[in-house]
Amino acid sequence: MIETMLKHRSIRKYKNTPIEEGMLNQILDAGIRASTTGNMQVYSMVVTKDEILRKQLLEAHFNQDMVIQAPVHITFCADFNRFNRWCRYRKAEPGYDNFLSFFTASIDALLVAQNVALAAEDKGLGICYLGTATYMADRIIEILNLPGDVVPVAALVIGYPDEAPELTDRLPLEGVVHRETYHDYSKDDIDRIYAEKEALPLTAELLEENQKQTLAQVFTGNRYTKKDNVHFSKQFLKVIEQQGFMNQ
Amino acid sequence: MIETMLKHRSIRKYKNTPIEEGMLNQILDAGIRASTTGNMQVYSMVVTKDEILRKQLLEAHFNQDMVIQAPVHITFCADFNRFNRWCRYRKAEPGYDNFLSFFTASIDALLVAQNVALAAEDKGLGICYLGTATYMADRIIEILNLPGDVVPVAALVIGYPDEAPELTDRLPLEGVVHRETYHDYSKDDIDRIYAEKEALPLTAELLEENQKQTLAQVFTGNRYTKKDNVHFSKQFLKVIEQQGFMNQ
Repeated sequence: MIETMLKHRSIRKYKNTPIEEGMLNQILDAGIRASTTGNMQVYSMVVTKDEILRKQLLEAHFNQDMVIQAPVHITFCADFNRFNRWCRYRKAEPGYDNFLSFFTASIDALLVAQNVALAAEDKGLGICYLGTATYMADRIIEILNLPGDVVPVAALVIGYPDEAPELTDRLPLEGVVHRETYHDYSKDDIDRIYAEKEALPLTAELLEENQKQTLAQVFTGNRYTKKDNVHFSKQFLKVIEQQGFMNQ
Repeated sequence: MIETMLKHRSIRKYKNTPIEEGMLNQILDAGIRASTTGNMQVYSMVVTKDEILRKQLLEAHFNQDMVIQAPVHITFCADFNRFNRWCRYRKAEPGYDNFLSFFTASIDALLVAQNVALAAEDKGLGICYLGTATYMADRIIEILNLPGDVVPVAALVIGYPDEAPELTDRLPLEGVVHRETYHDYSKDDIDRIYAEKEALPLTAELLEENQKQTLAQVFTGNRYTKKDNVHFSKQFLKVIEQQGFMNQ
């Protein structure tokens, strides 16, 4: 298990070999065993294989090639729709149209997503998360026909890898772990924690390619800009509200 | 790996045997290999063993006994503080003081949390998530001394199990999985999906104990009430704002 985790790489090139239905169901079965708040299971997985739908999802996910290459696309949704319906059919008035409930449902969805990702990797498949699921939530809602009380929070593509990338660098353990309480970072701490990352050949390439002085400038100026973040923030908050989770 | 997932149960009674430091670090090392948005790693784990601190956390987490029984308590935080400091020390102006960035960081934190949970279970340890991490975020921030740009989104207790509970029921796979697109639930669907759960002896016990007609009423009337949800929603949104993630 830990072995599988330590070997994790995001795969961005896939063979067009389909995933056998039995294997896919084993993966989903492992997914649903993840912890869920009060066993409410307030999430859904939408498993999309159809090529026409995947072409629409491809566009929604900023045309990242892997979306059409990988034979299976799973959208993980915060979902109170099923639970609310159950409540109403059982003479109970649900009170889950608020932000806390949205976040609770998001946690359910994300823990299941990570089980699914790991189970797939354990079967020799490759996976990649699509961060664009929240950016483009409104479009994904249209494509997948998501009703009210349902918000997409993550998406995974799964398939047989057609590349074998190196392990991605990580900050040292002590860079992300705090002992007992949080110990804020001094400039020396930051220098030490980021030293290895900043010295990577990949970093030099990115600086050259983006004509920047520092790697941080590649993030703030090119990859995750304030302008984009603010735009997609407003969009995502609007979606959360439209889907019915801001009525407190 | 899938085996470990299929055996998952939340453990609520722990022995006071400490977890060996080497084992704990292996678990954390598996944690940090989880996928993270753009490899930004915008999360932190606060690992708390100190008994005085755990007594404070116990109170924050609604006095659930397991919080003081289990020797290790990990709080998973959405954390842009480290990344923002890095940006500022590297002549880059971060634009991550918005809701999308908070949610991105929450995803990072939650995928790591699930890796940690599974790695711990793989080592024969028991785990339990504490849903109260978001409810009591303001108090946890005080106890753990979390700075701005950091919000707790999940907490886990880890230790050697002192109970061997049955597997918890789950809705059938087809109750939470949609094929191709979302197919909304009819009354028949709801009846079918919830039939097994509603027929459990545990359900009969809960109805008796809470003097309710339906299991759904136990949720809406006792466990997760609208009044509590609205209260904790407001609190959590206030925390997200105070910590600096609502400036878009």
